[in-house]
Amino acid sequence: MSAGPPLARDRFDLPQGLIYLDGNSLGALPCVTRSHLDAVMREQWGRDLITSWNKHGWIDLAHRVAARLAPIVGARPNELLITNSTSVTLFKLLGAAVGARGGRSVILSEEGNFPTDLYVAQGLADLLGLQLRTVAPDRLEQAIDSKVAVVTLTHVDFRSARRHDMAAINSAAHAAGALTVWDLSHSAGAIALDLSGSDCDLAVGCGYKYLNGGPGAPAFCFVAERLHDQLRSPIQGWMGDARPFDFDPSFVPAEGIQRFATGTPPILALAALDCGVATYDGLAMSDVERASASLSEAFIAGVGRICDGQVRLESPAQAPKRGSHVVFSHPQAYAVMQALIERSVIGDFRAPDLLRFGFCPLYNSLEEIERAAAILGDILRDRAWDDPRYHARAAVT
Amino acid sequence: MSAGPPLARDRFDLPQGLIYLDGNSLGALPCVTRSHLDAVMREQWGRDLITSWNKHGWIDLAHRVAARLAPIVGARPNELLITNSTSVTLFKLLGAAVGARGGRSVILSEEGNFPTDLYVAQGLADLLGLQLRTVAPDRLEQAIDSKVAVVTLTHVDFRSARRHDMAAINSAAHAAGALTVWDLSHSAGAIALDLSGSDCDLAVGCGYKYLNGGPGAPAFCFVAERLHDQLRSPIQGWMGDARPFDFDPSFVPAEGIQRFATGTPPILALAALDCGVATYDGLAMSDVERASASLSEAFIAGVGRICDGQVRLESPAQAPKRGSHVVFSHPQAYAVMQALIERSVIGDFRAPDLLRFGFCPLYNSLEEIERAAAILGDILRDRAWDDPRYHARAAVT
Repeated sequence: MSAGPPLARDRFDLPQGLIYLDGNSLGALPCVTRSHLDAVMREQWGRDLITSWNKHGWIDLAHRVAARLAPIVGARPNELLITNSTSVTLFKLLGAAVGARGGRSVILSEEGNFPTDLYVAQGLADLLGLQLRTVAPDRLEQAIDSKVAVVTLTHVDFRSARRHDMAAINSAAHAAGALTVWDLSHSAGAIALDLSGSDCDLAVGCGYKYLNGGPGAPAFCFVAERLHDQLRSPIQGWMGDARPFDFDPSFVPAEGIQRFATGTPPILALAALDCGVATYDGLAMSDVERASASLSEAFIAGVGRICDGQVRLESPAQAPKRGSHVVFSHPQAYAVMQALIERSVIGDFRAPDLLRFGFCPLYNSLEEIERAAAILGDILRDRAWDDPRYHARAAVT
Repeated sequence: MSAGPPLARDRFDLPQGLIYLDGNSLGALPCVTRSHLDAVMREQWGRDLITSWNKHGWIDLAHRVAARLAPIVGARPNELLITNSTSVTLFKLLGAAVGARGGRSVILSEEGNFPTDLYVAQGLADLLGLQLRTVAPDRLEQAIDSKVAVVTLTHVDFRSARRHDMAAINSAAHAAGALTVWDLSHSAGAIALDLSGSDCDLAVGCGYKYLNGGPGAPAFCFVAERLHDQLRSPIQGWMGDARPFDFDPSFVPAEGIQRFATGTPPILALAALDCGVATYDGLAMSDVERASASLSEAFIAGVGRICDGQVRLESPAQAPKRGSHVVFSHPQAYAVMQALIERSVIGDFRAPDLLRFGFCPLYNSLEEIERAAAILGDILRDRAWDDPRYHARAAVT
């Protein structure tokens, strides 16, 4: 029998007394990150300077972090690379996919997809004279016709946490001759993934949520090995060239996943992401997913019991249909969340009326979950959200 | 009268005894970077977690670093933003420029441009059915015809350090109705720039060379204020949207330079870049350029005197025609550079036969320069480069 949550609390430097239910937005600081980054700065950048590219293997660091990540997302190490931000990586993968499906004019997505995914897809479509078509999630499979070059979806919805059936959609896309590009921002590190086994084509995932890589950490990209030779990144940077240090004016894509590299790897950010990914070392993702389910189930049950119909669950009721967060609606969701934050329960608000709570089974405990539900109950009972100071909107919500 | 180099040696944590002439490849570690990054990790990410976006102004950090950079490159703060890597930023700017010059089919550059710039431009041209045309540098102005959408050049050549006449090329481009995109990687922080005064349209610059932002630091982008409303980034990320926290499915570009933002800002990398840019605080770029010239002139004179025709200067002889590095050719340049590195003089090799030496007037001294020339003289006199161990090529040269 596997242990319950928290699975690795001692790997994180979390403030005493804080109930942090926002690891799906920004993962907590791992204990080793500060000393590791300091060592990279002092012993590598500071002391060995430019020679660190060879001496400390900076040139391969993005691959080493990718190899550490591989078991977390169920991919082979050579199918993963750490490159740019999530948005830029998505642009590159979508561009590569439509390039490999020339003659097809549609990028298919769903209406409620994370806005940046739609913005990136729309921007690419505008650039290339393609069409971004969005449909309701239950109409996706039937919308994959012979005009569709690529289907791009977020695996776990950023609001509801609803989980797509990845294998089924990959299969439907492949039957119609289309490729898939998955956004795993709310999946990677939260639930068990099997990118290779579910026949994924391409995917991007966020480094700063469950992977604990720090604010604005670089994203990872996944490209199935069977596609490496067929795809080219629309952003051809020198690190994706077969022989970057020949400084030849003609670009020849590198073998394998390396062709998706662009510029000089961001070493400090990669070093921090490495520490974040390492918080999963030795953990089986099946155990992580089970622990996540026990946390979210406990919270749903607690809120149902304590808050007595004042908030409404807007996530799927069954854990296997969800990622590792849950949302509840309340007409005064923004103010309720401010009241929670003041009481040291950190979740987030998502417009227009959602309270979002993310559960990281590495550091969240069942006891915290019970306490958070009780505090939410107090706020609702006392109408604490009526306080005007909870209604002033900050720049970032 | 202004002081000679080094202008700010005490701002850097450089190893004793090392003569570091490669700040044009990777700037040295500023003294404050380690403690600042540690504070950001401990007091912001670790303690205040997601609330740091508001509490510590993470959401505006890219603008604050840009404001600090503004006097270094002669731009208004609202014309600068720190966004992605140099390659990705160049892609965005080129894409925006050709989008604003619809109907024109040519991206014009020069044959010897830095390869990644040509790769990025070629990739964009392939994507959009445009043509990348490269010409010899002395034929540039006459090659700007009515088919040219954008002229993209590296201001200071990565090999020879030859400096383009920015104002003249901007003027020629504008006369023909074209836009300019400058790569300032070997200019920013090295010499005095006046992006606004020389009527630049768009520019990108590297954060990890003279700006001392750390290995793989993010780049800066410059977009002239007069163009803000006319240009759109081809990569439309949520941070470039007018109201990102409305999570609206349709993209509406933000006002001003912010529309060139893409994904979540990389906070740790930005914090390090902030410290790097701060090494210029209080220095006038005219003084920096003058100190740079005194270093490169001393090195050229020293090498000429000591090395007696065994190496050949491949950079312009006059300082105002150069950036802040110089190159010499030698048939055994790779091995000569390895011998120099073993003797604690760090420059770099550039294929096929160049020895490159960068001078950072903030930390390099005239005494170091004399010593480096003498050590090079010893190596050449003793034919130290004959040693077989200097001929084994490393992954990164």
